[in-house]
Amino acid sequence: MAVRTPDPDPEPEDPDLGAFGGVPSAPSANPGWLSEFELEEARRRLPMLYVEAIPVRTDGSGQVTEVGILLRSTPLGEMTRTIVSGRVRFGETIRDALFRHVENDLGPMAFPLLPPQPLPFTVAEYFPIPGVSAYHDDRQHAVSLAYVVPVTGTCEPRQDALEVTWFSPEEAASDAVAAEMEGGRGTLVRVALAHLGLLR
Amino acid sequence: MAVRTPDPDPEPEDPDLGAFGGVPSAPSANPGWLSEFELEEARRRLPMLYVEAIPVRTDGSGQVTEVGILLRSTPLGEMTRTIVSGRVRFGETIRDALFRHVENDLGPMAFPLLPPQPLPFTVAEYFPIPGVSAYHDDRQHAVSLAYVVPVTGTCEPRQDALEVTWFSPEEAASDAVAAEMEGGRGTLVRVALAHLGLLR
Amino acid sequence: MAVRTPDPDPEPEDPDLGAFGGVPSAPSANPGWLSEFELEEARRRLPMLYVEAIPVRTDGSGQVTEVGILLRSTPLGEMTRTIVSGRVRFGETIRDALFRHVENDLGPMAFPLLPPQPLPFTVAEYFPIPGVSAYHDDRQHAVSLAYVVPVTGTCEPRQDALEVTWFSPEEAASDAVAAEMEGGRGTLVRVALAHLGLLR
Amino acid sequence: MAVRTPDPDPEPEDPDLGAFGGVPSAPSANPGWLSEFELEEARRRLPMLYVEAIPVRTDGSGQVTEVGILLRSTPLGEMTRTIVSGRVRFGETIRDALFRHVENDLGPMAFPLLPPQPLPFTVAEYFPIPGVSAYHDDRQHAVSLAYVVPVTGTCEPRQDALEVTWFSPEEAASDAVAAEMEGGRGTLVRVALAHLGLLR
Repeated sequence: MAVRTPDPDPEPEDPDLGAFGGVPSAPSANPGWLSEFELEEARRRLPMLYVEAIPVRTDGSGQVTEVGILLRSTPLGEMTRTIVSGRVRFGETIRDALFRHVENDLGPMAFPLLPPQPLPFTVAEYFPIPGVSAYHDDRQHAVSLAYVVPVTGTCEPRQDALEVTWFSPEEAASDAVAAEMEGGRGTLVRVALAHLGLLR
Repeated sequence: MAVRTPDPDPEPEDPDLGAFGGVPSAPSANPGWLSEFELEEARRRLPMLYVEAIPVRTDGSGQVTEVGILLRSTPLGEMTRTIVSGRVRFGETIRDALFRHVENDLGPMAFPLLPPQPLPFTVAEYFPIPGVSAYHDDRQHAVSLAYVVPVTGTCEPRQDALEVTWFSPEEAASDAVAAEMEGGRGTLVRVALAHLGLLR
Repeated sequence: MAVRTPDPDPEPEDPDLGAFGGVPSAPSANPGWLSEFELEEARRRLPMLYVEAIPVRTDGSGQVTEVGILLRSTPLGEMTRTIVSGRVRFGETIRDALFRHVENDLGPMAFPLLPPQPLPFTVAEYFPIPGVSAYHDDRQHAVSLAYVVPVTGTCEPRQDALEVTWFSPEEAASDAVAAEMEGGRGTLVRVALAHLGLLR
Repeated sequence: MAVRTPDPDPEPEDPDLGAFGGVPSAPSANPGWLSEFELEEARRRLPMLYVEAIPVRTDGSGQVTEVGILLRSTPLGEMTRTIVSGRVRFGETIRDALFRHVENDLGPMAFPLLPPQPLPFTVAEYFPIPGVSAYHDDRQHAVSLAYVVPVTGTCEPRQDALEVTWFSPEEAASDAVAAEMEGGRGTLVRVALAHLGLLR
């Protein structure tokens, strides 16, 4: 199965980002300053920087009670499970990228509470060849900063994600859920649960 | 100056804690299962476990914009600055202790967002002799698990804390604020700011 | 089975610690400034501060290759597995306590590399009643700061620990090993492996 | 002054890396699979992934006693201070990149002790425009995973670094040292010291 870290095409870039840092942005001719072809080239030459988020529900004392996993349909009609994931753009802060992808994947009514600290709970290294690490992505070498993000509102996933399924911590750590997750992200969920004091 | 980690007396214990873990609690005669005298004795014999919280305000993306410092009047009428701080009781979880002390020091309308993970941003060791570490407490050897806690409501400090002053990260890290803080907690605030990516 | 966080008796105190912080240390009157009886009393009244260490072997790049688990014989002749564990004394730094217990449990030739940072990889809360958290200790409420400690020498466990068994990360995370560990420390090993990027 | 995250040219690539992940590596067609020109292009289009290391000396208990800062001569003959820093290559693990750059900057006799855990002490975001964060790099948008690395041997910096200067923690945190450091890395040193419990 083709496991892919999501980065939907086309990816419209913010106009103000295109002009960031002296980048020539040829305004009239730059519908996406990093073309599909160029992005494909870069993916085979450089590690790509990603952010990932595991949505959670918490109780009044901040204790995590549920873990949100996205159910997604692949172009081939297969169902897989994943988490919030996406690329950091040139000139974009990690916090802005995290917020953008959470909103993109969970909808504008999720009301996420991004962590105040910049440090992720782990760094996941996705390699195109399985087995180099716990994580793989047949399309690229991606290095992902992974965060736990409590959400307080209603999640309405975008087009290609069918729903957010809420699991108890025990279910989220199970082999059954891990087997459905793409790219080894079942391990990432377990590392998050260990970080949260919820792994047994 | 007598620097003291706050632990106001009398400290009414929860009735259900008194019966925890087979502790004999002499129900009819238990106004405080750890008497004032016994607590004083323990303070000279054992390291005491504390939790501390630095209240912060965040913007919509989770970035910390302000740091809350408590202004307190000592019994001698001196004004000092401190943070939320208090002892962990027998049988009490760290999370419950943190919630209890935040509510006690900031009032019931502070609406704190306790972190989902149990790991503090640092462990502060308070010794009765100054100079052993950055932190001191002339009354005891205390080991404190310190957390950053965003608050979303209104802070109404209890009796002996006069107010919560909100500082910018730059002000909170300043020598002027550090000089007013008791027990070396100016350092603790700086460590928190470093953890938050806000120290310069 | 009586699960106990180790704290062997008698515990000879350092003479210089006895004089710390105004503690009366007159040798003739205070051969053990916290008597066995007093320590038992304290254990039923206050959370006890502990440090724990999971010994590991690393390769030349710092990657953990093996996890050390202590095999111990209980007073009843049962065999259980555990990790390095012990109490922090009054006036003792966490680093000194960690070093003392690693040397006590692994011998003077273990040559441990204590981590440069004071932050543990997790905080484990042991309650006398099972089920409050993942960890329990029928003797006391203990809060443990847990560290991963690479050792570079030869481990020669003291009297009541029979040996250090070195497991691969996969074995150390297994249900079989977890079932043999006392007080829920199989979970603690898994949390350590997650922290090390070695949990699958 | 032109502040630059070091990435010396030419950068000879490992032959086995060239064949990683389906990258065309035919030597005659790809003498340097990411040419100088292509790397320059990528730097203006994508965030570049870096690792950084702050070398330290520790005492027998693992406590940091000295912080190593590199003294470097710029092409214009200016003297600046920096830390170990370099790019993560396509297909390379973070651990391998960290080891490679430490050896490259400190020499083969430094005998570094890389941390067992993959998590950095902070993530530093370098932007080409100063002021977006505490860190800047006029050449690129770089995201750096920063580690504290104890070294046990002798540091012999490579050609363009003149020496490693060992500072006490107090000196390393001083404004004088920070003023000499490039790209805002004085802040990075302070964040490391806070993480180590050594910031006052």
